[in-house]
Order: sequence, then structure tokens, then C-alpha cells
Amino acid sequence: MNGQLIEADRVWTGRTFEMHQAVRVGADGTVLEIGSDLRPADGERRVRLPGRALLPGFVNAHSHAFQRGLRGRGERFPRGAGSFWTWREAMYELVASLDPDRFRDLCIQAFREMLAAGMTTVGEFHYFHHLSDEHDFAADSLVLEAAREAGIRIVLLYAYYRTGGIGSPLQGGQTRFSTPSLDLYRKRLDALSEQLDPKTQSLGIVAHSIRAVDLDELEALHREACDRGWVFHMHLEEQRQEIAACREAYGKTPMEVVLDRVDPAATPTTAVHCTHTEGPSMERYLDRGGRVCICPLTEANLADGIADLPTMADGIRQNRISLGSDSNARISMLEEMRWLEYVQRLALERRGVVTNDDGLLGPNLLNIATRAGARSLGLPVGSIEPGQLADLLTLDLGHPSLALVEDEHLLDALILGAADGAIDKVCVGGTWKGLFSQAR
Amino acid sequence: MNGQLIEADRVWTGRTFEMHQAVRVGADGTVLEIGSDLRPADGERRVRLPGRALLPGFVNAHSHAFQRGLRGRGERFPRGAGSFWTWREAMYELVASLDPDRFRDLCIQAFREMLAAGMTTVGEFHYFHHLSDEHDFAADSLVLEAAREAGIRIVLLYAYYRTGGIGSPLQGGQTRFSTPSLDLYRKRLDALSEQLDPKTQSLGIVAHSIRAVDLDELEALHREACDRGWVFHMHLEEQRQEIAACREAYGKTPMEVVLDRVDPAATPTTAVHCTHTEGPSMERYLDRGGRVCICPLTEANLADGIADLPTMADGIRQNRISLGSDSNARISMLEEMRWLEYVQRLALERRGVVTNDDGLLGPNLLNIATRAGARSLGLPVGSIEPGQLADLLTLDLGHPSLALVEDEHLLDALILGAADGAIDKVCVGGTWKGLFSQAR
Repeated sequence: MNGQLIEADRVWTGRTFEMHQAVRVGADGTVLEIGSDLRPADGERRVRLPGRALLPGFVNAHSHAFQRGLRGRGERFPRGAGSFWTWREAMYELVASLDPDRFRDLCIQAFREMLAAGMTTVGEFHYFHHLSDEHDFAADSLVLEAAREAGIRIVLLYAYYRTGGIGSPLQGGQTRFSTPSLDLYRKRLDALSEQLDPKTQSLGIVAHSIRAVDLDELEALHREACDRGWVFHMHLEEQRQEIAACREAYGKTPMEVVLDRVDPAATPTTAVHCTHTEGPSMERYLDRGGRVCICPLTEANLADGIADLPTMADGIRQNRISLGSDSNARISMLEEMRWLEYVQRLALERRGVVTNDDGLLGPNLLNIATRAGARSLGLPVGSIEPGQLADLLTLDLGHPSLALVEDEHLLDALILGAADGAIDKVCVGGTWKGLFSQAR
Repeated sequence: MNGQLIEADRVWTGRTFEMHQAVRVGADGTVLEIGSDLRPADGERRVRLPGRALLPGFVNAHSHAFQRGLRGRGERFPRGAGSFWTWREAMYELVASLDPDRFRDLCIQAFREMLAAGMTTVGEFHYFHHLSDEHDFAADSLVLEAAREAGIRIVLLYAYYRTGGIGSPLQGGQTRFSTPSLDLYRKRLDALSEQLDPKTQSLGIVAHSIRAVDLDELEALHREACDRGWVFHMHLEEQRQEIAACREAYGKTPMEVVLDRVDPAATPTTAVHCTHTEGPSMERYLDRGGRVCICPLTEANLADGIADLPTMADGIRQNRISLGSDSNARISMLEEMRWLEYVQRLALERRGVVTNDDGLLGPNLLNIATRAGARSLGLPVGSIEPGQLADLLTLDLGHPSLALVEDEHLLDALILGAADGAIDKVCVGGTWKGLFSQAR
């Protein structure tokens, strides 16, 4: 691949859209420089994007791609109200029904929809390891293969999952998730390391949840992440029942247990959800360097509850609160961003909750959807600046949902008012994706 | 226009998608019959829709089209948190800045986006009457003209607006909304009646809000609606401050005042929002035949609060709870539908709130977005059946957001999981709209 010079009508440089900028990208897919007076060098490809704005690609910090197979399912409630736990049964049914082809197709479909929605990176929280028996680990390679096929950057957040509840064995569909020992888990990490496409694929360490690991394992897994220099992710406090079971077993909340056993500053450490985390615990976790990933569409679909975003204000300020598409019941980073704010507005009856220190909403939500996700995943993406990978999206300024919008309001109009169709093309590490006629 | 025979892979017939049905539409734009064995008659146009599902067009029961001009505006909060009332200041600024061309362009743009999002009818709650002075009523005809230009069916819900608050005069930008007397208001209704395109345009009566009319006017306006056989709409209890001011002036809530003065069964009567309506008042209002329009995206944007949907269960069952795009900050009926349910899930921590008696979500939300809106607006649209107007939308079954979805889950997948791009074409009274290359 040659280097390229990308010329767009507007380029988001972190604080504002600058007019008529060009972005030079090296042959290795890294941004080299940005300026208004750059001219193409010899042999450099010129990519002209008239009528387009260039933004950093969105970073989806938490996904279970195979759950794309649940779209429209688990939404009938003939015997009264549903809960997270009845939804989980539907998910286990899906798990039991998937063969390798269907699993791969669902992952490819999910990743393509992510790209079409402007997400250039996915943190794939992968706990569904086995497709035929509980020992095959056949799904692991398929996820990487699907990501390569779709062309998305992936951090395979590789989940350790040993118990079906605190101290209880795996049951039914859960056996598809089994990692029977830390020893075998480490071997899998080593084997997968050799299968990665180094340009677009990396690994992270995951303790699935407080239900799926014991406390020594939790500690060992986090240490493993530190030793390898990888990121660490874990589901945390999404549902009240999880917290009650943890209190009963350990006399503490899952967050308190994590704070006892783990140093969140030692490697990027992300707790996914924190819907019901108590204020003081959250403050302590953030003070100690912890990160949180919120998944607005999924948390709404699963009726999890409303996270306390004002308590996370410091985390937001430090790019430590990110967004994930999680169950992929719907894949739209624009919708995730606006409802992160909107759910707070409804709960607090106050506008402008997830704003930055200057009182701005759009730039703050964009940071959450880009830089914060990048840091949670340990990747040099999420902004357009020299040294970062050229993971980009383009916005069609002629899209009807952006028509009649003044330049200075473009970002807020995009996030609060645009359809996904306003997102035009994406670029992953300098490679442009042309799959949009199918995937819009 | 000749009659036509529309053949689609699937047709939504009210309870399910039926396979390979044809819909016969008369030259007058009315559905004549539906069946699997219909053949084109002589001179009848044949409209084949392979790979498409046919649904009733969505009915947007509450819109202020000109507020499309606020998209992305009023979203900066430099002096701390914002409120509905600071947003209203931004809206008044827009109002003061609009000339006839800009006003018309904004309305056309909003109506086109509605069509692209599958909305074939708009209930345009029109209170912005004057463009140059407080007597010109120049905006009224422009709204009708814009609707005709875009090709959307419109009920011009013509608002009476005399006071700026209870007992206080209009101030600043509010003078653009002025209807100084009932007498002049009635003359305007008569004049507008003669400007309507009878195929796609009709009128309704509106008391803007308890802030804008006195109680005798409220009563007179509702009686006017009954006498003319028109529908009646009114903003109600969106904001706590409105309720407090009404209690202070009249010793009662706005809903109690309405129940004192108005018989909601005498003509279709819709209270828009009811975010803070108390349970017993809501039950009394629904028992007496009242209707409610909820505007999830706008109520979220404006931080109104969370309406008590479970109290409205009987109203939902009777197609008396509808949806509106209101401020048009974002125009998507799919997003309005899913967040009507999702906001309840988050608040109640329970899945499946807005379900029908069979525990189904999708058909119930679709009814809310079609039949209930149609009844609120007094129109024979909202379902595909003989005698109804052929207001339709088509769904692209090959759209990526619907890929790998089983037939039986198609409706839930559409509402909860699809991008607006899955909506392909719309038909208003038998006339197909071809504006989708621009308006997606």
C-alpha cells in the first residue's frame, strides 16, 4: 500500500471542524501530518472527499457479535413481564443452536453493520468458545476470521469463564463458554497470539463476571493482563441480582471485590455497565484509575436500569468512560451517543448532563465514542493526529438529516439528529472500505 | 391516476406479515381488496415489490416542522445545566430569525425527512402564524404549500395562542404566534378550509396549552372542534412548571381543568405529552375517551421526564396513545417506537412494558405508530384494509439491519433493530414517492 493524501471539506481535529484540511497517511496506515497546505508527494495516492467531513472512526468498546442472531428475538412476553434473566435464557437457546457457519455469518454481519455505522474498531468480549463440544474452542478463530473478512479492527477480549454462578458449575448452554483452568486459558492466549493479523488484531484479558470466576482467578487474570501489557475487561454490576449474590457470597459488592483484588491503574481496566454501582465505590474506582464502558441501547433493551453518570464526571473528563454496542440488537453509535445523554436528561430532568468543562455536549460525546474507547482497548486510534492509526469515517455533508444545519452546529446535529445513512465511508489503518451499498 | 395492483413479498395485515399478497388500490387512492389470488384488471397499473414488505405508513401525530431549524442548536450549556425553558429561548430566537423562504425550506425539509422515515401523515401542530408582523398569518399557507411540495398527508392542527402565560400578554417572539380573538381564529379556519388540497389536507382545532388560552376559550375551542367534526389537540403537562402555574391560577392541574371543561369523547381529543399527569387524573381522562400523544425523542431532548405508561395501558389497548416527532431534532419513527418501550424498561427495570394482551411488543408499537395516530387525527389511514386510504411504506427485506432475521421476528427486528435505511419507499393515497435517493 502506498501512502495517501486525504483531502476533505472539514476535518475534526479534536475541538472543531477545520476547513479544507488534508491528512497525510503513511504506507503503514499511520497519520503523518495534517494541514491546509499539504500537496501530494510522488507516488502518493490522492483521496479527494468533496462534500465530506472527516472524523475519527468510532470505537465500539464492548460487543458480543454472535448476539446479532437475537435481533428481534426474546421480545415476546406472553406470561407477563420479562427480565434480564429470561432474556439470558433466549441467548442460551441461540448459543445451543449455532453451528460454525451460522456463528461466522452472524459475526461478519455484525462487524459489517458496525463499519457501516462508523465503528472502525470493535472490542469483542468473546466468551462463546465452543461450537460442537465443550473443548473445541472452534469459535475463537472464527471471530478473528470474521473480523478480517469484514475489515474491522478488533481487540479480541478473550473471556475466562469457569463457573455458572459463584461457586456453582456451568450448566446447559454455559458449557459452550467453558475455560476449565487458568493454565489452559493461558495456552489459548498464546495460540491465538500467533493467529492475529498484527495490523488490525490484538488480544485482551477478560474475567467474564463475578459469577464466572473466583477471586483468586480474578486476581490472577488481572495480573496476567499486566504482565502481558494487555487491557483487562469485566462485566460488572449490570443487574441487582448479581450484586445480591456477590454480597451473599463475599459480603461485598462486585465493585468492592474488584477494588480489593485489582489495581485498575496497573493496566487499562474496564468495568462494563456499572449500572447499579454505588456512588462512593465508583468514586474510589475512578480515583484509582478505573474505566467504565456503558452500553445504552443494550442496557435499555435488557431493562438494566439507569447508571449514575454524574458520579462518573471525572472519568468522562479523563476519557475513561466509553461506549459499547454489546448485544448488537441495534448497531448505531449515533444512537448510543445521544441516548447516553438522553437517558440522563429523562432521569434527572436536566439538559446537558454529559458535557465537558466548557459546557459542550457534542465534543464530549464524540470523545466518549472515540478516544475513551481507544484507551480502554489500548489502541493508538480515536483521534486524527500524527502517530495515530488512520481509522476514519466520512460524513456526507449533503445528507438530508444534516441539510440546513450551520457549520458551527454540525457535530451536535450529527450526534443528536442524524440518521446512520449520513455516515458515508470508513477507513481502517489507511484501507478504505467499500461495502456501503450493501451495508447501509 | 389509474387503479393499481401492488404485489409484495409480505403484507402486514394487522396481526402478522402474510406472504405474497396483492393489494388493489382504486383510482381514488383507496384500498379496495387484499388477497393472494388477485390478478391485474384492464388498465390497472401493476406495482411489483420483490424483496419488499408492505406496511401501513407511519402516522406522526405531533410535529412543529419549523423547529427542524433548531437541529444541533441549543445544545451548549456554558453556564451550567439547561432546561426546557432555556431551550424555549433558543426556539424563540429561531422564530425571530425566520423569513418566509427559510420557514418554507425548513418545513419542506422536515416533511421530506418524515416521508423518508416512513411517515406518510403528519399532524402539524401549527402555532407559528406570522413571519413579518403579528398580523400577517403568512406562515399558515406556507405550511400547507410545503406539505404539498413534499407530498405528505397533513392535518393542519391550527393553534389558538392568545396569552404568553396564564393571564399575561404575549412577549417577544411569542407575538409571532398570536391569534388575538376567537372570532379572527374562526375566520382563519374558514379561509384555510378553502386552501386545502382535499385529497391530502385537512384541519384540526388546537388550544396551544393552558398557558396560551383562558378557560372559556378552551371550552369554546373544543366546542368548535365538535361543531365542525374536527379533531382537537392541546399540549398538556409536559413540564412541572406548567402544572405549578396552573395550580396557582386555577387551584387545579391542567388535566383537571381540561376534565372540568371538555368532553374528550365528543370529538377525538388528544393531550400531547402528559409527562407529569397524575395517575388518577390520567385514568379519568382515558375513561372519558381521551387520547394522548407521546414524543419520546423530544421529551428526552427537552429533559421533560418519564411519562407513566403503565397507567395508560387501557388507552394503548384502545389505540388512543400515539407518537409524535414534535421538535424534529431527529426524525425517525423507528427510534420513537423503540424508545417509547426502552425508557419504560429503564425506569421500571422490567422488559415488555408496552405490550398488548398477548404479550406482543412489535404489533403493539406498530399500532401506536399507525392506527392510534390515525384516530387522533381523524383519518382513515393506519392499516391496510378495504376502505382505508393507501398510505403505505415498503421495507427492504434485503437491508443489512434485517439480514439473518427469521420471518416470525421481522417486526420486532424492524422496530428494535433496524436503521431508517431499511424503509424503502412510501405511498400516500396511492401516489408513490421517489425522493429517496436524496432523502435517506
